[in-house]
Amino acid sequence: MNRLPQTNRIHVAEVVTRDGFQSEPQFIPTEDKIALIDLMSTAGYAAIEVTSFTSPRAIPMLADAGAVFAGITRNPAVEYIALIPNARGAERALQARVDAFNLVMSISEAHNQANLRMGREQSFGQLQEVIRLAEANKVPVNVSLSTSFGCSLAGAIAPDDVLHWARRFADLGVRGISLCDTTGMANPVAVGALCQRARKAFPTLQITLHFHNTRGMGLANVVTAVQAGIRRFDASLGGLGGCPYAPGATGNICTEELVHMLDLMGYDTGMNLELLLQGSAQLEHLVGRTIPSQLLRAGPVL
Amino acid sequence: MNRLPQTNRIHVAEVVTRDGFQSEPQFIPTEDKIALIDLMSTAGYAAIEVTSFTSPRAIPMLADAGAVFAGITRNPAVEYIALIPNARGAERALQARVDAFNLVMSISEAHNQANLRMGREQSFGQLQEVIRLAEANKVPVNVSLSTSFGCSLAGAIAPDDVLHWARRFADLGVRGISLCDTTGMANPVAVGALCQRARKAFPTLQITLHFHNTRGMGLANVVTAVQAGIRRFDASLGGLGGCPYAPGATGNICTEELVHMLDLMGYDTGMNLELLLQGSAQLEHLVGRTIPSQLLRAGPVL
Repeated sequence: MNRLPQTNRIHVAEVVTRDGFQSEPQFIPTEDKIALIDLMSTAGYAAIEVTSFTSPRAIPMLADAGAVFAGITRNPAVEYIALIPNARGAERALQARVDAFNLVMSISEAHNQANLRMGREQSFGQLQEVIRLAEANKVPVNVSLSTSFGCSLAGAIAPDDVLHWARRFADLGVRGISLCDTTGMANPVAVGALCQRARKAFPTLQITLHFHNTRGMGLANVVTAVQAGIRRFDASLGGLGGCPYAPGATGNICTEELVHMLDLMGYDTGMNLELLLQGSAQLEHLVGRTIPSQLLRAGPVL
Repeated sequence: MNRLPQTNRIHVAEVVTRDGFQSEPQFIPTEDKIALIDLMSTAGYAAIEVTSFTSPRAIPMLADAGAVFAGITRNPAVEYIALIPNARGAERALQARVDAFNLVMSISEAHNQANLRMGREQSFGQLQEVIRLAEANKVPVNVSLSTSFGCSLAGAIAPDDVLHWARRFADLGVRGISLCDTTGMANPVAVGALCQRARKAFPTLQITLHFHNTRGMGLANVVTAVQAGIRRFDASLGGLGGCPYAPGATGNICTEELVHMLDLMGYDTGMNLELLLQGSAQLEHLVGRTIPSQLLRAGPVL
């Protein structure tokens, strides 16, 4: 899938119902999730990461993964993705007719241990099995490389390590990788440099950037990523995804702020900003507190 | 004052006690303002905008301008600036031994009318008088051009208008101008383009960028400004400066987040980040609520 890399077309993937919701303390009813996804399905997204087929005990919020997939009305223009931790989750996801798999592994050994309770080699082995399953079922696979720009446990992450693991997954035939700034430690210079190296090393791979706004640098990092030719971004409606117990703390970059900025910069996101703001306002009612989105309060530039 | 424009040295001006405090609902005691400025005086700032010599009736919060200037302990490495609305304010400021004057005018006629209750030509006339006073007293002058990137009343602002007014002030011999995104409408592409034009048009002028983070684009705009060779930024400790009645709404870009990002990017701010975070934590007690700074909660990158 070779793409024209310097087009102005931006592909936005929504992650709020997965990355955003999974840290929420109160269960969000299945029908509310479905209604939100159905609304977003008409907003111009390239993809929606609907849920995760993980253990219901590990993340009770996403225990209804199958029901959510069964309940949504699919727009053929949107890819409905799920996070797949292992072969068991992959089987459930295949039954749910997930359009594409997103797998996850940390570049930081310490973070992988803390998050997935196994070493990277063991993760790689499990994911290899999932990739084989996906291939057999003609389901495209993306691999999210967590802590690509730094780790709160291990500190700095060498770009060479990121490229090493990206190469190992590329060699398994995955369609794309995501460079994930899981802990909000990326800065615009580091982002520009790694994006350039990744695009050069993997010219045919879909490369997505996944930023968190933990330290206020989220959209600043988007700027150097687009300058380096990146055209795919994850974002979370309302900026949800941070720890709900830290007032004002933000998680993922905010979808409506990402779209608003890129549109103003002359990029073509193809997104309906008004609909995003509508969804974001609903979200605030859904989680019962003020969400990080500043655009929701200030309104878009005239 | 011709500078080497492409050095990595960044000059940060603190505006929290002026731009930040002026929208606070509760008066902050003079001694608390002095203590905060004294703390900041050791943090590496190029300048601190201490207060405004405006009408005490117009902005009661800054009615103690003279007392604050009399009470602070000056660090010779820091320039202590005040906002000067008119000749009357200039006289008070000269008595207070202000190091430099910051004047303000809006590029948007409607905004100038709303904010200063006069047209731009009348403002220009008044400021011309202030500039003559400053010159006679050997006090350097900066002119802040509000709404340089858009106006909530007038909409889009033509870059030609910004350069036109900058030229008129440059011809009066001012030392510098600030391009102010008063309403948080600037985007990284517009910023890069205007900074490049301004630097080319005014190679010997100090050009400062003054961003608000109203729509989340504050630090993203800093990225393209530094790329365009800008080395002077205003910022507000804790990100104070937004309307305190809009929960979570941010005002000026946050000093500690600006410094943190630029340091990570390899620029030399010369700032003591630890001290900034200390000041920001004090500030939260001072205003009695959670302030926008995300870095204060997340902590700096290891």
